[in-house]
Amino acid sequence: MRLGFIGLGAMGRPMALQLLRAGHQLELWARRPDSLRPLLEQGARACASPAELAGCAEVVFTMVTTSDDVAAIALGPDGLIQGAPAGSIHVDMSTISPQAARRIAGRLAEKDIAMLDAPVSGGVAAARAGTLAVMVGGEAGIFSRVRPLLETLGKTIVHVGGHGAGQVAKACNQMVMVASIEACAEALRLAAASGVDAGRVRSALLGGAAGSVVLEVFGGRMAARDFQAGVEARLHHKDFAILMHEASRLGCPLPVAGQVWQQINALMAHGWGGLDSVSLLKVLELAHA
Amino acid sequence: MRLGFIGLGAMGRPMALQLLRAGHQLELWARRPDSLRPLLEQGARACASPAELAGCAEVVFTMVTTSDDVAAIALGPDGLIQGAPAGSIHVDMSTISPQAARRIAGRLAEKDIAMLDAPVSGGVAAARAGTLAVMVGGEAGIFSRVRPLLETLGKTIVHVGGHGAGQVAKACNQMVMVASIEACAEALRLAAASGVDAGRVRSALLGGAAGSVVLEVFGGRMAARDFQAGVEARLHHKDFAILMHEASRLGCPLPVAGQVWQQINALMAHGWGGLDSVSLLKVLELAHA
Repeated sequence: MRLGFIGLGAMGRPMALQLLRAGHQLELWARRPDSLRPLLEQGARACASPAELAGCAEVVFTMVTTSDDVAAIALGPDGLIQGAPAGSIHVDMSTISPQAARRIAGRLAEKDIAMLDAPVSGGVAAARAGTLAVMVGGEAGIFSRVRPLLETLGKTIVHVGGHGAGQVAKACNQMVMVASIEACAEALRLAAASGVDAGRVRSALLGGAAGSVVLEVFGGRMAARDFQAGVEARLHHKDFAILMHEASRLGCPLPVAGQVWQQINALMAHGWGGLDSVSLLKVLELAHA
Repeated sequence: MRLGFIGLGAMGRPMALQLLRAGHQLELWARRPDSLRPLLEQGARACASPAELAGCAEVVFTMVTTSDDVAAIALGPDGLIQGAPAGSIHVDMSTISPQAARRIAGRLAEKDIAMLDAPVSGGVAAARAGTLAVMVGGEAGIFSRVRPLLETLGKTIVHVGGHGAGQVAKACNQMVMVASIEACAEALRLAAASGVDAGRVRSALLGGAAGSVVLEVFGGRMAARDFQAGVEARLHHKDFAILMHEASRLGCPLPVAGQVWQQINALMAHGWGGLDSVSLLKVLELAHA
């Protein structure tokens, strides 16, 4: 199938490669043309703008950072909306606000362009392995058509509901994940304060009711004191701004998420936004110093 | 081996049964003799006091509720210390404070009775299946001798450190677990407030970086709105009192655990201590009503 892909960052690059390896023709556009090179060498083709790209693809994927990025690519002067044929599909896999996803979908619908919000979880390792969790919002008929493509990228593909529902699920995902990272950091901090080996505590917890992907992956980084980025904390900071704003808009109290948010703010204030979110442990250690 | 077992509650009963089925001779004592009957029918023997029980067992297990319960059984007038031969071992599998565990171990050591703190995680289902996670504190030599018995009860047996280290690990376990239950409740509450199906959000999250035993088990109960007890919330309330007191004693800040504690207090204030801790979701719903 002729596909478009925009957003060749740490996550997007391996995802685009999966689609290419699955035998699809891939049209690319990037703000920084340098980032295209590895994929061009594998047979992808460069376009001059999102509008041109949209003109030669049945389905366009975007994987960028902010709501504004997606809006500019989809609706801007040289945006997808200027070139996409009626009946084509835009699948946005970025993590943006549910409200922005609904608004962009509404604008594209006016030109008979379908949209799905389809953010992912699992990180770079899962992107490389094609084992991401994909949370999809949008029309069921469109989801059915795109599903085989999503199965190239992920192993858990769930149609959560209408437009924005994928982003709601992703907000929930980030809340649970970062709250778990913080809880794990507090547990290992308490262990250390008690004179008990944090790594052994983690091992003891892994087999019980506190067992989780976060304890396995992020707890492992904490025990090894590896604060280099798997996922940069500044991205979780961005995600929390989205979800806490959404909760505020809905009048939905999230007491623990609110407290986690303040810990992430403390992390950012220390200048650690480029490190992994396991640096939440360092925030606790400073407070204790 | 001749073993003693005290504390035949929801967790203790299936654990005692595992030991009996593994071919050990089991001496029992209970405050309420009624609770002994099912095990006596399977060949266990009743004793008149903890002291008498200790006199005919090489290793005595206790599985009760509070630090005071363990102290009374171990050190009270008719306690284990009155009858246990030098060289015998007391394995306390209750969840109590690390300080209490260290204090009791110290008193027993004066009579050459060894002690391990060996609290567990996994709940009644894991107790029945013999697949508990067991977190052990105490001397390595004693741990080695008792390990085969613990393997009858659990599948993850970790020697965490010296006296009290098992209880520190258990405090960490409860913190991470209940914080995860609360985070899960907040996520599903946000989903519902957004008009998105909570069950589908849970399914979407299970395959990603937010995946956990809590999301699987407790998230499933929340999606099904099953608030009946798996583990009664009042026990988590007790566990949080222990761990927050311990953190305070050590001057160790636990911002998210502190917030979780207040949500559990709200749950208790609503009279829901006999329900499952997934009732934390109901606390959020009331606040939103």
